[in-house]
Amino acid sequence: MKKNVLIIGAGGVAQVVAHKCAQYNDLLGDIHIASRTLGKCEAIIRTVHEKRNAVTGRHLAAHRLDALDVEATAALIRETQSQIVINVGSSFLNMSVLSACLETGAAYIDTAIHEDPEKICETPPWYGNYEWKRRDDCAAKGVTALLGAGFDPGVVNAYARLARDEYFDRIESIDIIDINAGDHGRYFATNFDPEINFREFTGQVWSWQKGQWTANRMFEVAQEWDLPVVGKRMTYMTGHDEIHSLSRTLDVPNIRFWMGFGERYITVFTVLKSLGLLSEQPVATAEGQTVIPLKVVKAVLPDPSSLAPDYTGKTCIGDLVKGVKDGRPREVFIYNIADHAEAFREVGSQAISYTAGVPAAAAAILVARGDWDVGKMANIEELPPKPFLSLLDEMGLATRVRDETGDRLLNETADVSEQPAQLRRRA
Amino acid sequence: MKKNVLIIGAGGVAQVVAHKCAQYNDLLGDIHIASRTLGKCEAIIRTVHEKRNAVTGRHLAAHRLDALDVEATAALIRETQSQIVINVGSSFLNMSVLSACLETGAAYIDTAIHEDPEKICETPPWYGNYEWKRRDDCAAKGVTALLGAGFDPGVVNAYARLARDEYFDRIESIDIIDINAGDHGRYFATNFDPEINFREFTGQVWSWQKGQWTANRMFEVAQEWDLPVVGKRMTYMTGHDEIHSLSRTLDVPNIRFWMGFGERYITVFTVLKSLGLLSEQPVATAEGQTVIPLKVVKAVLPDPSSLAPDYTGKTCIGDLVKGVKDGRPREVFIYNIADHAEAFREVGSQAISYTAGVPAAAAAILVARGDWDVGKMANIEELPPKPFLSLLDEMGLATRVRDETGDRLLNETADVSEQPAQLRRRA
Repeated sequence: MKKNVLIIGAGGVAQVVAHKCAQYNDLLGDIHIASRTLGKCEAIIRTVHEKRNAVTGRHLAAHRLDALDVEATAALIRETQSQIVINVGSSFLNMSVLSACLETGAAYIDTAIHEDPEKICETPPWYGNYEWKRRDDCAAKGVTALLGAGFDPGVVNAYARLARDEYFDRIESIDIIDINAGDHGRYFATNFDPEINFREFTGQVWSWQKGQWTANRMFEVAQEWDLPVVGKRMTYMTGHDEIHSLSRTLDVPNIRFWMGFGERYITVFTVLKSLGLLSEQPVATAEGQTVIPLKVVKAVLPDPSSLAPDYTGKTCIGDLVKGVKDGRPREVFIYNIADHAEAFREVGSQAISYTAGVPAAAAAILVARGDWDVGKMANIEELPPKPFLSLLDEMGLATRVRDETGDRLLNETADVSEQPAQLRRRA
Repeated sequence: MKKNVLIIGAGGVAQVVAHKCAQYNDLLGDIHIASRTLGKCEAIIRTVHEKRNAVTGRHLAAHRLDALDVEATAALIRETQSQIVINVGSSFLNMSVLSACLETGAAYIDTAIHEDPEKICETPPWYGNYEWKRRDDCAAKGVTALLGAGFDPGVVNAYARLARDEYFDRIESIDIIDINAGDHGRYFATNFDPEINFREFTGQVWSWQKGQWTANRMFEVAQEWDLPVVGKRMTYMTGHDEIHSLSRTLDVPNIRFWMGFGERYITVFTVLKSLGLLSEQPVATAEGQTVIPLKVVKAVLPDPSSLAPDYTGKTCIGDLVKGVKDGRPREVFIYNIADHAEAFREVGSQAISYTAGVPAAAAAILVARGDWDVGKMANIEELPPKPFLSLLDEMGLATRVRDETGDRLLNETADVSEQPAQLRRRA
């Protein structure tokens, strides 16, 4: 049993994590939020109180922290007696925060792979470049480190594990499909940090095909899918974190990630990339100022958190798994549908942040309960999926399954009522 | 008779002006080139020598100058004994350079309207905001100041005057059409300073219709034309300098400017403008750096002068004039066709720079000769057009006329041979 949670970061996902942890603070204990900008942490805490999302009067506190500073982070972990750290700050922080957890023994949870600001889309498997180099350290010190515990990566890894355990004898392919059918009403905006968003797509697209790494360019391979609720959607093969662990941990020859993009996104991305405006390499202006173009693009785009109030529509994210069961070919789509406006009503964030943040809070609860306090480093598919998916049912992200027998909830007991999740929890 | 020329600026147009002035340095005397970057001035002088474009051994010298510094500019005018200043630097410099001319008595020539870096597309007529406020000063001091002596504005103003003097009793409309049917082979590039290029299109589009100023948005009004050599071309109504003088100096109720744009330009422009990347207002990055987005866009785009070596195809710029002559309706198109590759062979620049720079050098020659040394401020249509157009025939920009009788050279004696213009001059 671990308790007291330190959340690192104060963006849209951090806001969701804070709200969902507060809904379980009888179990989780004190909740601390730390980022470079104290005011953003304080603002999140205000919204938790406004929405009355805390179920007990336990501490909810804001802290200023440069999480690249390992000693400062370790000191804050000790000072707050946090036994669980949820890192939902910039992807550049992962290794520093993990170091602080290794130093203090706190459990570590993140939702996205570590990135070096100087590099993009490095040699696969990406986890091998940073995270897995600390695997032995974690095991030696008995530190629980859960990698990629958002939705994708995260829940989709659990879906893949569930498919392997229960639905297939042999899996031929896993296609992870991520569709945002929402509308934020702006000319263009990214749903999370534009810097991280664009970096996902500026390098090579790595996929796992016929048991080996295959490289493509972004927008080179397109695929249309007919999906529940959101209907027919065009997607493009995209590099993504989960391929880099699933290809190692499951014995599946084809693992691909497909992201839905509207024409507007593709046009804007193509123009910015072609002009060199997505570059993380500095350029000099005629006046002699040195500037990183991508940071200027980020500066002019809407703050992703500002989109939430007007966001309508739904997301559909899931795993289309093909293989063989009892000698017969089979196809199963395991997925979730989230709603932007519902997420906003509950926690003040849109569904992209909601789907990423709720699973991280669920992972913290499973560590607190002991189910997932494994005392080592693990990707999500290495952990038992059922407690995770059951908890997510309760927390607002119900799992559905579509197969040859039809379309149904994974657990018929899942609460899919319209009532806000905090009321379900209180009920 | 004035002599010795100081060229301010060292971009693509300045290069053309330097080459063309050198071709006439028996008449013009010493040629001096001054800009913030000495190396760019020196590079231009090297190319003049390489192409053997100087017809005498008169001085060709480079100077470092911040032309916003009026005293420094006046000092350089005196030191070089320049009696003619051709300002083809940034549009932000016009008023400073004009002040230095007023102080020293040198003749002033520019090719584009003054701009304030803080503002875009101000109240019409634009010349009234800055230039014409110095009209009395110029007259009082007998200083010749020729405004907008490039192609458009410049030659197209002379075409309008010619039309009024010789082809019409009453003019109903002047549509100035600017088509670049060239191909530089890049994903996207502007043909002159991107900062100035985009600033032309980010504000309101002012046109002169039914005798009054009319405001539209960029790309709101489209018009296809069928033109000599370049064929059918889509254009968009655009704000442009010459409308702001022609509407005052000629009694014509409709004066519009149409610029040809390809789909790629429109896409890139729309994305950049919609995102706020064409803004001249500073933004702050997440790291706290203050940056002007437009200057970053400029920094990532190709240097316009780098396009010249690969540029192929032609430009077509002219005035489509409609009105009445001898009681009968009439339509005349007065125009020039320039060729990117030919311009590059002659002076190392593409045709956009060539068409802007040659007329400025021609204006300097007319001032040196006395034809246009009027001792006051004047827009080009206020000056006799025939000496100008005859000289341009000789200098490589032949005027053509298309009317009800067919398509012909304005002056049948114009040299349109393939031989380089400097050889024509030497012949």
